[in-house]
Amino acid sequence: MPDTSHKPRDVMPEHARTLPARYYVDRECFDREMDRLFAHMWVCAGRAEQVAHPGDFFVRELLGERIVITRGPASVNAFYNVCRHRGTQLCTEAHGTFPGSIQCPYHAWTYDLDGCLIGAPHMDEVPHFRKADYPLHRVGSVVWDGHVFINLDPRAAPLEAQLGALPARFRAWRMEDLRLGHRIVYDVRANWKLIVQNYNECLHCPNLHPALNKLSHYLSGENEPLQPTYMGGRMDLRPGIETMSMDGTCPRAFLPHLSPEERRCVYYYAIFPNMLLSLHPDYLLVHTLWPLAPDRTINICEWHFHPAEMQRPGFNPADAVEFWDMTNRQDWHVCELSQAGISSRAYTPGPYSNREDLLFAFDQMIVGLHGE
Amino acid sequence: MPDTSHKPRDVMPEHARTLPARYYVDRECFDREMDRLFAHMWVCAGRAEQVAHPGDFFVRELLGERIVITRGPASVNAFYNVCRHRGTQLCTEAHGTFPGSIQCPYHAWTYDLDGCLIGAPHMDEVPHFRKADYPLHRVGSVVWDGHVFINLDPRAAPLEAQLGALPARFRAWRMEDLRLGHRIVYDVRANWKLIVQNYNECLHCPNLHPALNKLSHYLSGENEPLQPTYMGGRMDLRPGIETMSMDGTCPRAFLPHLSPEERRCVYYYAIFPNMLLSLHPDYLLVHTLWPLAPDRTINICEWHFHPAEMQRPGFNPADAVEFWDMTNRQDWHVCELSQAGISSRAYTPGPYSNREDLLFAFDQMIVGLHGE
Amino acid sequence: MPDTSHKPRDVMPEHARTLPARYYVDRECFDREMDRLFAHMWVCAGRAEQVAHPGDFFVRELLGERIVITRGPASVNAFYNVCRHRGTQLCTEAHGTFPGSIQCPYHAWTYDLDGCLIGAPHMDEVPHFRKADYPLHRVGSVVWDGHVFINLDPRAAPLEAQLGALPARFRAWRMEDLRLGHRIVYDVRANWKLIVQNYNECLHCPNLHPALNKLSHYLSGENEPLQPTYMGGRMDLRPGIETMSMDGTCPRAFLPHLSPEERRCVYYYAIFPNMLLSLHPDYLLVHTLWPLAPDRTINICEWHFHPAEMQRPGFNPADAVEFWDMTNRQDWHVCELSQAGISSRAYTPGPYSNREDLLFAFDQMIVGLHGE
Repeated sequence: MPDTSHKPRDVMPEHARTLPARYYVDRECFDREMDRLFAHMWVCAGRAEQVAHPGDFFVRELLGERIVITRGPASVNAFYNVCRHRGTQLCTEAHGTFPGSIQCPYHAWTYDLDGCLIGAPHMDEVPHFRKADYPLHRVGSVVWDGHVFINLDPRAAPLEAQLGALPARFRAWRMEDLRLGHRIVYDVRANWKLIVQNYNECLHCPNLHPALNKLSHYLSGENEPLQPTYMGGRMDLRPGIETMSMDGTCPRAFLPHLSPEERRCVYYYAIFPNMLLSLHPDYLLVHTLWPLAPDRTINICEWHFHPAEMQRPGFNPADAVEFWDMTNRQDWHVCELSQAGISSRAYTPGPYSNREDLLFAFDQMIVGLHGE
Repeated sequence: MPDTSHKPRDVMPEHARTLPARYYVDRECFDREMDRLFAHMWVCAGRAEQVAHPGDFFVRELLGERIVITRGPASVNAFYNVCRHRGTQLCTEAHGTFPGSIQCPYHAWTYDLDGCLIGAPHMDEVPHFRKADYPLHRVGSVVWDGHVFINLDPRAAPLEAQLGALPARFRAWRMEDLRLGHRIVYDVRANWKLIVQNYNECLHCPNLHPALNKLSHYLSGENEPLQPTYMGGRMDLRPGIETMSMDGTCPRAFLPHLSPEERRCVYYYAIFPNMLLSLHPDYLLVHTLWPLAPDRTINICEWHFHPAEMQRPGFNPADAVEFWDMTNRQDWHVCELSQAGISSRAYTPGPYSNREDLLFAFDQMIVGLHGE
Repeated sequence: MPDTSHKPRDVMPEHARTLPARYYVDRECFDREMDRLFAHMWVCAGRAEQVAHPGDFFVRELLGERIVITRGPASVNAFYNVCRHRGTQLCTEAHGTFPGSIQCPYHAWTYDLDGCLIGAPHMDEVPHFRKADYPLHRVGSVVWDGHVFINLDPRAAPLEAQLGALPARFRAWRMEDLRLGHRIVYDVRANWKLIVQNYNECLHCPNLHPALNKLSHYLSGENEPLQPTYMGGRMDLRPGIETMSMDGTCPRAFLPHLSPEERRCVYYYAIFPNMLLSLHPDYLLVHTLWPLAPDRTINICEWHFHPAEMQRPGFNPADAVEFWDMTNRQDWHVCELSQAGISSRAYTPGPYSNREDLLFAFDQMIVGLHGE
């Protein structure tokens, strides 16, 4: 049974206020977050189905780097897009398929799909030169339930440590079975943390998202306390509502392994630093955040469905796509307004309500990250 | 009788030279001028008729801030465009009318037209929270003769101190009675001081403005010595010329309260830091300057006329608009050329003529402002 | 007889690696190169035919300066584009003809074509003012074999010292007789040194320029060791190939004074800092480089032909223009990819092959220039 009691949340401490402006505006703060979070944690890059066959690749931009994610004979690999000869970028397309090897367009140095240098014209005339010394610069890569994660830190802890209890909790959705139904890339003129914060409270829903509030009451559900590497909670569908869609009906079968309780709610989890995972009864919504500047974030939003549904004649994800695209645009708009207002000399930290508990906890973590 | 003797001006001191390049090029100098002039003096923002009724508002950008000027029940108010909850910008339009109150689009915090917080959903669950602690951040605002001035400094002296003798001197134009006939917004790639300097000498008129020089001889009139907060002077219309217009005739009645002398000349006053006030026998021309960068200034130019004339069938301000728009464009062009040339490593301060007396005085004031 | 033996080059020292990224990315390094090379050496600005008659002018941008190159009664002159009165830029066109004198558009200060101030309205009212004190700021200018060079350093050594042995060696091409057949301006998003380096090795030709490699074998010819102010070498045309053109035939007469050997090869010389001189049997190709930023260079490419050929009915330079335009675009593309890859945190200097000898020597010179 969904929780419809709307029980009150804990009362916020008296000093619970939003962060000072520098966390959203200063280049230094941004660089520190890029360094301490995005350069050391596992970052969700995309889906294993994007590299279904050896040589398939796609490119993601992280910390100004263009990272090439590709499939080798044995595993998914990720490399910096840099030839070991004279530094030339190897790959100019956003996605595609390498023909069995990766060749630099400049002097034809050639690498296999595991990044080993296998061709270097005229370098055999150079004594002491050994191909084995010049593999592609590697980036960590691993797959969880169909999601590809990358990590710039060669000494990173395993992904499992970062995901904590989530793989077990979300096992029933069998995310690795799902397939991409739609993708929209948004260019948001706001700090990445404003998007995370916006995602983790629904106090704004009655005012900003009246359509959403008709499907799922903004006071419903429950938050889990902040974890070291993720935060999130559950919201309940209103009676008669089947899923988050334009009219609240669900034209698809529910995902096959969900419990009755799991079919009556939506889970919203932010997995730090860049993944927003929204688990619906019949589909998976994933946002990945790609910060470009203190005031700019690329947001890749994808809808994934069960392949059995996608193969049915007349499969149409529009009800879910339109609903969340509308809601996304409302959210990015206020995130951009917040970014602009927080940049004002007049901005002072403001008081949080009890319904913004996860935001306050997240802010505390960010403050700690900066060593302040 | 207009002065047609073109009497010689005082001889400039031998060291009278233009300012070093840094005053026009360096970010530091720009920031210091923004801080010491634009953040502490009264800045002309627009006209009271733009906020004729309670709730009417318009927005001006000053020091990167978007200031909302609106009318409350009792007075014209100005506010920073920042919600006290999470810093969101309240107002996204350049002008419009608030429906009796100002509501944040994010979580619906609501303020009355005097800036008091009157609604904050769910904040009543938070102990110690008092609405009275969170009014909108206020900016000083006051009206002189129809002109709205704003001031970012909460401890600013009254506007009267800044205007000095001008309200009495220009009383006869009854500027508060006049109404907007036309507005053009220019984006000028030049330092704001180059526009002020261009405005305060007519030595360039025979070469740059041959049409203007036919209406008003460039050596006519007289300058008032520089005052602490403004500078300006008078130029005389040539015999047979009625006003500054494309053909020198005036298709409108003169303003009703001018003396015969006031009808035979044009007053040009720069009221620091951002207002250029040009009083004609039959209309008022106002430029307001909005510096965006050392080399970029938004220039809002307005033509105001007597409402009795504007209500006549066939009223057409084109003769005055076209004349000054043509002249403005000539001026901004050379200001932009000066900005570009002054940025050259080859630029060295050059000698002023006796006809550039106000510029030299203005430069001295600017040097003093920088504490140099 | 052309050399077809493809003799091996000297072996590179073991530590021969490409430069660290900062040389291509950092603003400081860029500024130092602009200061120590471009502000002190002779820079090729264009051709004497562009200022064929007194008053003809063209403008080049160097170190952010717009330099006006014009012809006076006796010589080619170059000036900063800055009026001595208030710093206004004098010249807004990219090329044209001054009407016997140069007049500032602002206050009509007027200079003759040798840069002397000859008119300054109202300045005669200022005691101590003497026109002779305010000539235009001059830039060094001199012509070699039809090429106009400029120099920002008033104490520069003569151009002859910079050109060394080249005027004698390339005398037979009689470059001053040739005339412009075509010009293309490229905007390349790469450091200027990457363009110089790309120009001075053909190891990339088989992979990047298959069409070029059919005309001239990439291992043919010979490099001259690096000189203090230039570097270059010779490549040989393959048997049956007449010149560098789309099909390898030459629809024009060879230049009249070349030796049989000179007709069988192409000379490629980079004259530091900005000229790439490519001497063909029947035409002259010249690139001049105009760095705008560490990662951006304007590249002006010109094809010059013998006037006797140009006057023939049906003269058409398309075979040569298309060939090099295609080749240029391939080169700029990989230069841009190198710029992007070198900017990566993963980039590390890579090993040079023996065929990149001039690049290693050039890099050593650059390192020395930076005092490192």
